[in-house]
Amino acid sequence: MSPKRGFPEEEYRARVARAQAAMVKAGLTALFLTTEPEVRYFTGFLTRFWESPSRPWFLIVPVSGDPVAVIPSIGQALMAQSWISDIRTWAAPDPGDDGVSLLSEALREMAQGGPVGMPMGAESTLRMPLQDLRRIEAAGVEIVTDGGLMAGLRAIKSEEEIAKIAKACTIAGRAFDRLEEVVRVGAPMEEVFRGFQALLLQEGADWVPYLAGGAGPMGYADVISPAGAQPLQEGDVLMLDTGAVWDGYFCDYDRNVAIGHVDARARDAWDRLLEATEAAFEAAKPGVTACELWQVMAGIVGSGETAGRLGHGLGMQLTEGLSLSPHDHSVLEAGMVITLEPGIETVPGLFLVHEENVVIHETGAEWLSPRSTGGLPVIEG
Amino acid sequence: MSPKRGFPEEEYRARVARAQAAMVKAGLTALFLTTEPEVRYFTGFLTRFWESPSRPWFLIVPVSGDPVAVIPSIGQALMAQSWISDIRTWAAPDPGDDGVSLLSEALREMAQGGPVGMPMGAESTLRMPLQDLRRIEAAGVEIVTDGGLMAGLRAIKSEEEIAKIAKACTIAGRAFDRLEEVVRVGAPMEEVFRGFQALLLQEGADWVPYLAGGAGPMGYADVISPAGAQPLQEGDVLMLDTGAVWDGYFCDYDRNVAIGHVDARARDAWDRLLEATEAAFEAAKPGVTACELWQVMAGIVGSGETAGRLGHGLGMQLTEGLSLSPHDHSVLEAGMVITLEPGIETVPGLFLVHEENVVIHETGAEWLSPRSTGGLPVIEG
Repeated sequence: MSPKRGFPEEEYRARVARAQAAMVKAGLTALFLTTEPEVRYFTGFLTRFWESPSRPWFLIVPVSGDPVAVIPSIGQALMAQSWISDIRTWAAPDPGDDGVSLLSEALREMAQGGPVGMPMGAESTLRMPLQDLRRIEAAGVEIVTDGGLMAGLRAIKSEEEIAKIAKACTIAGRAFDRLEEVVRVGAPMEEVFRGFQALLLQEGADWVPYLAGGAGPMGYADVISPAGAQPLQEGDVLMLDTGAVWDGYFCDYDRNVAIGHVDARARDAWDRLLEATEAAFEAAKPGVTACELWQVMAGIVGSGETAGRLGHGLGMQLTEGLSLSPHDHSVLEAGMVITLEPGIETVPGLFLVHEENVVIHETGAEWLSPRSTGGLPVIEG
Repeated sequence: MSPKRGFPEEEYRARVARAQAAMVKAGLTALFLTTEPEVRYFTGFLTRFWESPSRPWFLIVPVSGDPVAVIPSIGQALMAQSWISDIRTWAAPDPGDDGVSLLSEALREMAQGGPVGMPMGAESTLRMPLQDLRRIEAAGVEIVTDGGLMAGLRAIKSEEEIAKIAKACTIAGRAFDRLEEVVRVGAPMEEVFRGFQALLLQEGADWVPYLAGGAGPMGYADVISPAGAQPLQEGDVLMLDTGAVWDGYFCDYDRNVAIGHVDARARDAWDRLLEATEAAFEAAKPGVTACELWQVMAGIVGSGETAGRLGHGLGMQLTEGLSLSPHDHSVLEAGMVITLEPGIETVPGLFLVHEENVVIHETGAEWLSPRSTGGLPVIEG
């Protein structure tokens, strides 16, 4: 039962209704959005064209009524396929006035002199020139923080959203099952990375926005480096961590495999990682906090690893929302999708990291990625 | 003679020296940067981890002395491989203080009470929470516009940068040469897109941040849509436009092919596109303005197309810098890499777009993408 692309209009209307109820509570007259996931959340506007920084895109969600898109004319045809009917365009990029007048007018019309909320807290970015935001404020629009309203809405996924994340996880799972096809002793890591991305595409990923990894007999020094010419070697533990996308939703998990043989310390570390993941899975239910879940895992793997967290939210972005870290007191709720990502130091400066994706239901967690079990897999390179 | 990965330290030092000379002229005490290409420009810090919005990354380039990186500890190991020696880290994400204190202190130290420049004009984004920027300003750091300083530096590419873009173009060229392998009448467009991305990887792309396209007997209604289930049909003109990356540098060009046969109107439109591209190529030399180059093409293809421009700068981003548009008076200089991207309306609402990449030398333009010649290619699906 593969999910369909897109969402029915009712889903978008429900999102808007939830946003509007929260706006009333927060005393906001409108929500002003500039980033890809935020605009897409309410409109379904899905394009890789955000890769180009040349044009800003704006969406206004008023406290009552339908959203208004203020966008470059190059996006008119695609936005017109969405449920949004009020689409205002300009011929961007325009060095003299890149949508600022059009946007100011729309914001003044929607806000009626009241405060306009904008995501400006944790994880937020401003995807428009700061100078243009200042111009809009100077034109009499009061821009205030949305107080985490937008992040709060996005944190709870609908069944349809969860199905898309599950599909991305399934696709990556099939690619990981074929890992042996691209792993070869002596192959430069960049070749392994390329080959694995091609597998993800062959298995149905729309695109592969993220792939990181590492390899070494005792693990890897960091988990964010791109691949270079260094060759994969007998005895390495190879880790590949992917964020593959299907219909705009991410998976984010990794797999570790030992090449040929494995050192006992790496094997033991792996066992602890699985133990921590299982413990967190058992503990992950509504009402539990992010830091409590961190505690469960840190109690098993130790708290010395450098990533600063042992998991995070996931959805329209590779990472989003809460962090499984000692400082994050966010409370788990049904509908959240998170990663469980314990890391462990094997020898000073080297780590193994394991990651799975789960969804939180009223009754507890459910695996979205194909749960790893057993000892550290060994494959011939 | 394939280029090497990375750049020698002297290249980074030369970039810093140019930035510092410009800062003196602009009366800035430091440059404050938050985005991927800007941080990478001075440090070489290359990672796909920017895909995760959870952590901000900061770089300060003082008016004298070496840059200072203020980054999450997860990036310590990778940044330590760069030429940057002053690396200050915190355990991000930290909901209480996500690097703000550390950054404020560093900025106050570098700025010595003077103005700190930040890109805040065209194409810029603020990749940190706006709230945190306001905190830094409240802590006594004066943030002003860099007046386009950063964009100006990045617009002129070094020989080493040009070689990387040329390599990305060559890789995409080999993938386009194999297009027949993934084109099949009746294939859903999403399958064609996946197959072509896999070809790009097989031919050596590190990753494929951008692929757009369209298909129809008279062209396509827009050039930014993702692929869906609609099948490729006999008589369609298929366009694929890719931004593939090698070592952090993009190509950005497309190819059009007719499937089986082609309507005379599409064939004629194609001839005009090539004519416009050739004319722009001949005209593209130092001293010519972006709008003059637009004029050359618009005179041949008409000025009615919806993209708002007929080409743009290219480099560390899919699009960057000048626009070949009626409003952009930027002057071409040697070392600029640009796309020539004429579009033409075939029937109302449908377009063909052709794109090539060129570098500007003192003596004129040089093709970086494998120049298209002859009639619209026809392949059997």
